[in-house]
Amino acid sequence: MLADEFSLIKRYFSDCGTGASDTLLGVGDDCALLAPPPGEVLAVTTDSLLAGVHFPLDSPARLIGLRALAVNLSDMAAMAATPRWFQLALSIPEADQDWLAEFSAGLNRMACDFNCTLVGGDTTRGPLTISITLLGTVPPEQALQRSGAKPGDIVFVSGTLGDGAGGLAVLEGRLPVDMGGATYLQDRFWQPQARVAEGLAIRGFASAAIDISDGLLADLGHIAAASRVGAEVEVDKLPLSQVLQRSAGLERGRNWALSGGDDYELCFTVPASGLAQCQRLIDEGVLNATPIGRIIQGGGVHCIDEQGALLDISTSGYQHF
Amino acid sequence: MLADEFSLIKRYFSDCGTGASDTLLGVGDDCALLAPPPGEVLAVTTDSLLAGVHFPLDSPARLIGLRALAVNLSDMAAMAATPRWFQLALSIPEADQDWLAEFSAGLNRMACDFNCTLVGGDTTRGPLTISITLLGTVPPEQALQRSGAKPGDIVFVSGTLGDGAGGLAVLEGRLPVDMGGATYLQDRFWQPQARVAEGLAIRGFASAAIDISDGLLADLGHIAAASRVGAEVEVDKLPLSQVLQRSAGLERGRNWALSGGDDYELCFTVPASGLAQCQRLIDEGVLNATPIGRIIQGGGVHCIDEQGALLDISTSGYQHF
Repeated sequence: MLADEFSLIKRYFSDCGTGASDTLLGVGDDCALLAPPPGEVLAVTTDSLLAGVHFPLDSPARLIGLRALAVNLSDMAAMAATPRWFQLALSIPEADQDWLAEFSAGLNRMACDFNCTLVGGDTTRGPLTISITLLGTVPPEQALQRSGAKPGDIVFVSGTLGDGAGGLAVLEGRLPVDMGGATYLQDRFWQPQARVAEGLAIRGFASAAIDISDGLLADLGHIAAASRVGAEVEVDKLPLSQVLQRSAGLERGRNWALSGGDDYELCFTVPASGLAQCQRLIDEGVLNATPIGRIIQGGGVHCIDEQGALLDISTSGYQHF
Repeated sequence: MLADEFSLIKRYFSDCGTGASDTLLGVGDDCALLAPPPGEVLAVTTDSLLAGVHFPLDSPARLIGLRALAVNLSDMAAMAATPRWFQLALSIPEADQDWLAEFSAGLNRMACDFNCTLVGGDTTRGPLTISITLLGTVPPEQALQRSGAKPGDIVFVSGTLGDGAGGLAVLEGRLPVDMGGATYLQDRFWQPQARVAEGLAIRGFASAAIDISDGLLADLGHIAAASRVGAEVEVDKLPLSQVLQRSAGLERGRNWALSGGDDYELCFTVPASGLAQCQRLIDEGVLNATPIGRIIQGGGVHCIDEQGALLDISTSGYQHF
């Protein structure tokens, strides 16, 4: 169905990525045929974006294409796997060639940046929905799962947090900000930079990892639950961008960092044995990451202030007990 | 998003299929981790079903689940690959637990029948859409592509054709039929039996294969185009079920067989060197297939009658020139 539209998408693709050597057969047959590197296992993830749910209606097609692949790349990063191929299930209300060209251009840019190849999919007529299944590979013993954190491990996050929620607030007219700040924050929402390189960098020493899509508290909570441990976050250590602090203020910025979502940074844990190596990568500028807390016995995620006093985090934000 | 719904789907799954040995990590982390058998390559396909487009609104959830996986299994069969794992991207208007339980039951039945495992996905709130990405494996030299047909090869189809279109006509009240016939035809629409075993059976000797989802003329046309050849179909040899002949008549039955779609049978080509083996499998009852024509030089798909005279096939059906 809508074979022409899929051909169009394919036409705008420049076959970025790993190409001929491990893609035996790409778009156009009943299946794609792919050859993973010997000794590695497959990592597979699927994320869907719906217009009006995950992004505002009438968003630019190019940005939708960028973001649709980026959110999947972020899951791949959290597994410490190398992204290689993806399938695209696209539902569109009408066969708008300009829209498809722009969408493909965005998808293509992200695919080229991360060296992965569109190998197939399906295009149907319906409400705008983009589902991507991304395939990558990783040596089996180096995959980073959510379940490996242990009490005493230090919790790190990559980059800065809260910018995704800030960007969405700018897009929806809820956050007044100067032109430079608006561009920065909206880019952070639309073009999250999946931390694939960071995932590969930490896979020698980290004990667990997840990408932050629903907000730090929720996602660190997933690590805690899967690892059967608790976690403590020092709120004053949360890395916030200068733009976010300036435009949203410290308190709102921290709340967005904790609960805002859409950041697509990595949250990972490092045992004592890996801290020196982690710090060296940070010092060398290879890894942009900040320690923000620790894994503890028990369960749940708790926030503490500079003095170590417990903070109460509710849906309206954090406050002292 | 809607993590609870995905948990529910998972809850109804009995982990059919290949299980622990090649599924290192299933639903619940950032990625699934999968170990393909050594020496085989990956075959990957994606098919989406939209309510109101690919099936009537208010269809039973169990049947939607069955069909959503079946159409993907059919693509895997056409590649002569063994289905192993699948990802589910599900968009649903509301979190209806009964609907999800029924849908999962259908999906689960089909997954168990074909020995494949749900390993991940994404659930979002929106118009009912099911996208499945199915992963299988095949020794690279045995994968059946569309591009291998050569002039002189004989064209076969598995099973009977036209029943899918007949079933849809019954569902939509366009085809009066007795109770037994209605059940047969509707089952053929809702629960197409992917010809995975047939795909595996022919992979030693067939030269090309495709599954018939859009109608024989369209899909054999894909083989012809990819192989840069033409094809000739003897209309009187088209295998039609007795129910279809009885309810729709010979002419309408043949037209549905040629252009109706939704059959999910295999169309494959066999060179002279493979005909004896193919016939032996048919005689032994291992392979249910019928020769219906041949590959010729040139391009396009042509229909001929019993005397070899060319028939004109238009959208309103076939007729003599």
